[in-house]
Amino acid sequence: MESLRARLTRQVRFIVEVDRLKEIFRQTVLINSRRAENDAEHSWHLCLIVITLAEHANDPALDVLRVLKMLIIHDLVEIDAGDTFAYDTQAMANQHAREAVAADRIFGLLPPDQAAGFRALWDEFEARATPESKFAAAVDRFQPMLLNCQTEGSAWRRHGVTRDRVVARNCHIADGSKDLWDFAATMLEEVVTAGHLQP
Amino acid sequence: MESLRARLTRQVRFIVEVDRLKEIFRQTVLINSRRAENDAEHSWHLCLIVITLAEHANDPALDVLRVLKMLIIHDLVEIDAGDTFAYDTQAMANQHAREAVAADRIFGLLPPDQAAGFRALWDEFEARATPESKFAAAVDRFQPMLLNCQTEGSAWRRHGVTRDRVVARNCHIADGSKDLWDFAATMLEEVVTAGHLQP
Repeated sequence: MESLRARLTRQVRFIVEVDRLKEIFRQTVLINSRRAENDAEHSWHLCLIVITLAEHANDPALDVLRVLKMLIIHDLVEIDAGDTFAYDTQAMANQHAREAVAADRIFGLLPPDQAAGFRALWDEFEARATPESKFAAAVDRFQPMLLNCQTEGSAWRRHGVTRDRVVARNCHIADGSKDLWDFAATMLEEVVTAGHLQP
Repeated sequence: MESLRARLTRQVRFIVEVDRLKEIFRQTVLINSRRAENDAEHSWHLCLIVITLAEHANDPALDVLRVLKMLIIHDLVEIDAGDTFAYDTQAMANQHAREAVAADRIFGLLPPDQAAGFRALWDEFEARATPESKFAAAVDRFQPMLLNCQTEGSAWRRHGVTRDRVVARNCHIADGSKDLWDFAATMLEEVVTAGHLQP
């Protein structure tokens, strides 16, 4: 059995390593300064959305703590694998394979029992089969959609993404929260009407 | 009773407003790029530390979900009140008064029941009287300490902060986790020995 100090040393090494998440930049931009958002800020914003909107989840018995744990760690794999833009079909083809290698290395910094626990959370998030992972995935789609809507469709316009593709990509928000998808769909139509997203 | 859409509209307005947390910069710098950290990244890092180190809390029955909720929202007041450096005694004198006004405005964007719930969490965090708020405060002190130790004491050196002041400011980490404070105190001595913090 590892000593307490050895265990804490491993855990702190992991905490130091993941500081890099603050330097992984996304396609989405911030509402005010319009600079690219990074994965750490994004992950925090998702957590805040969860505690604000959990009441709208399809499952009234949602385990909010597990949703938060998934979202806190869901993008750590991007430290090694980089951010994959949601509309880049080529990069998405081998995304999971690249991210699984990253998960082995990054979660592997932790003591084995904890590494297994974090990996199980990440696998659950990726599989989107439980109410918790469906709601986590819904929030992970809703947040960039909201930021795009608040910045005149910036990432969509830059990449020539059309309304059909945004709907196809984001409609599974409804698997986690029908109410949130209804709200998001209306928000999207307003952006199309305003001319910020191609119909 | 407010309609579902009206309630969601208020909640989303709050979610949009707090995007500004990503533009509130702190004295601490990131380990790799050495740019200033912002409050949103900091808040995410605290959440990650909680789920990694909760086993070391003094209270074995800690409510981890409540700790996370507190930390997700604990710095929102800085959107209006700005970041107060932990060693700026002048700014700290009226810090709580400035932040309480900010809490009224920012949480007040939410539906009243939820505004009251978030405000209660923030008040609990500020009072540091419960096991959850003590552990949350411990993590909120440990993280900047760790980042300073990993960057040759950058913020401490820039502001001429000595070891005594760092110990005085951070020793209440022990109120949340004795084991974590023991670890942190050793880490600090290593930084003093390396010449990155004045004894």
